[in-house]
This record gives sequence, structure tokens and C-alpha cells, in this order.
Amino acid sequence: MDYSPELGIPILERTPAVLRALLLGLPEEWIRAADGPKSWCAFDVVGHLIHGEKTDWIPRVRHILQKGESEPFQPFDREAMFAASQGRATAALLDEFAVLRAANVVALRGLALKPADLARRGTHPELGTVTLGQHLATWTAHDLGHIRQISQTLGRQYRDAVGPWRAYLSMM
Amino acid sequence: MDYSPELGIPILERTPAVLRALLLGLPEEWIRAADGPKSWCAFDVVGHLIHGEKTDWIPRVRHILQKGESEPFQPFDREAMFAASQGRATAALLDEFAVLRAANVVALRGLALKPADLARRGTHPELGTVTLGQHLATWTAHDLGHIRQISQTLGRQYRDAVGPWRAYLSMM
Repeated sequence: MDYSPELGIPILERTPAVLRALLLGLPEEWIRAADGPKSWCAFDVVGHLIHGEKTDWIPRVRHILQKGESEPFQPFDREAMFAASQGRATAALLDEFAVLRAANVVALRGLALKPADLARRGTHPELGTVTLGQHLATWTAHDLGHIRQISQTLGRQYRDAVGPWRAYLSMM
Repeated sequence: MDYSPELGIPILERTPAVLRALLLGLPEEWIRAADGPKSWCAFDVVGHLIHGEKTDWIPRVRHILQKGESEPFQPFDREAMFAASQGRATAALLDEFAVLRAANVVALRGLALKPADLARRGTHPELGTVTLGQHLATWTAHDLGHIRQISQTLGRQYRDAVGPWRAYLSMM
């Protein structure tokens, strides 16, 4: 599927409600469950998504539109949430993510990007030349990847509890 | 994590809202997108979940409680939705799933299962001896596995569109 704002934005604008539906009021045993020592729990993922709204997605869109390839993006700190989320409540993180995302979707719609804009180029600090369309497709797929990650992390908590059914559950 | 109704039910009762938040009103290109010829699209998955509510989860709970191991469960038709969903609207499937799930959660709560009940045994037609606790853990993990599957199927539509970012997105 090619990237288009018409199809990409409906995913972006749904993610806060998906995370609320899954996580709000869910017992803390699930929210804090990880899948091994390096795995993120659902609480970590929501914080990571917040940091992306603040420092990555729309800021890099503006960077490409204003500076092109002349200057690489600021590196994104994918683990910033370990400090930033500390002591916060899950509900507060879900609310903050929803507010930031709503504003960022308004900003994206406001740019009224045309197909020619999607071909504009920027410089990623590790990946080199990227296009605005690739960046926007990544924002969208990144959401879905983290919904997938949370579902998998929660589901795998029952890896042993499902007994012989484990053979049928590819996620395990 | 051991299975307990106290932790398992909050997942079961959230799934209809998660699927609605993700899929209701989403463009049909997403709803019908599959990830290869044998992959299910989101529309297929919702139909499959409906069939599970009707023929698998609570019916097998009652089977274990009433018949124990004496008689194997009826086999579950995991592809029944290909006929049953034909011509239906996604919104109608989401509604039907929500109604069935709500009733089944009421039924599950109404059984007020105790730890000793979770050890009761049934006979799976392929897997042999299983316990009621394993069956209920599977119901829960099965939901999460299908949320994961839908997220992954949608996200992978952008496998090429993300360009070099593909290297960072493990789901791809």
C-alpha cells in the first residue's frame, strides 16, 4: 500500500482510543507486565508514544519542509520515557497521549500535503536520505507496531497458563 | 502469570471496545487488507471471534462443568466466518461481537468459579486432556493474539512505504 494522508490519518487518530480501550482501568499486573528483562511493559510503551508526539513525528515533518536534507534530524531518544513517566498514573499518560496526538493530527491535516510534498527529502542521522512520505508511513506503522507489542506482551503472560493450547497460539 | 478470573475477565471485557476503536469507520482498504494469500484481514478476524463466542468459549466451559472428560469437545471451525460473514458490514460484526461477548462475560462471572473449578478437566478433540483454567487462559490470550494479528496485518501494508525505517520496525 502506498502512503497517503487519506488512509494514514485514520490510523493515527484511532490509536489513543485503542490504547484507552485496552489499558484504562486494567489491573496494574497487566500494565506493568513485561516479556523478559529487556521488554517494555504497556506503561512504558504509552510513555514512548508520548515522547514521539513531542519530539519526533511533527517536528521532523517541519524539519523536512523547512530544512530539507541540509541538516540531519535530532536523534530520537527511544528510552526517554523511563525517566519521564516515573511516578505518573497510566490514566494520565493515556490522556496526555490523546491530547498530543489530537493536536498533531490537526497539524498534519493543516499542512494539506500533496503527493509532490511526500517526495520531499530529509536526512535521518542513522538511515541517511528519507522522504516525507516514508516518515509519515513510519509514524502510522509505528503505532500499529506498538499496539501489536502491547497485545503480545500481555498475551504472553499466559504462555504457561494456556497449557497444551500453546501449540495453537503463534504469538507464544 | 497464573490464570484467574479476576485478571482474565478485564481483558475479555475490553476486546470489543478495542476492536471498535481500531476498526469502526476505518477505510475499507484497511479492513480488507491481508498479509499474503493465507492471511486473514481484520474483517475475517472479527467474524472468527464471533464464531468463538457462539460455539467455543462458554459452550466448552459448560461442557467441562457438565460432562468432564467423558466426551471430547465439538471441534471448533476456525474458518466458519468465511461463509458466515459474507455480505455483512464491519459495523454489524463489531456490534454482534460486543453483544455476544458481554453476555458471555456475564455468564462467566455468574459461574463464580473457584480455584478448584479451574482444575476440572475436559477432553480436547486434538490436544487431549485440558483444564478449565487452561481453556479460560486460552480464551483471554486468543483475544490478545487476534488484536496483535490485526495490528500486524495493518502495519505490514506499509512494509515498503516506510523505506529505510523498515530496519527499525521488527513487525515488518
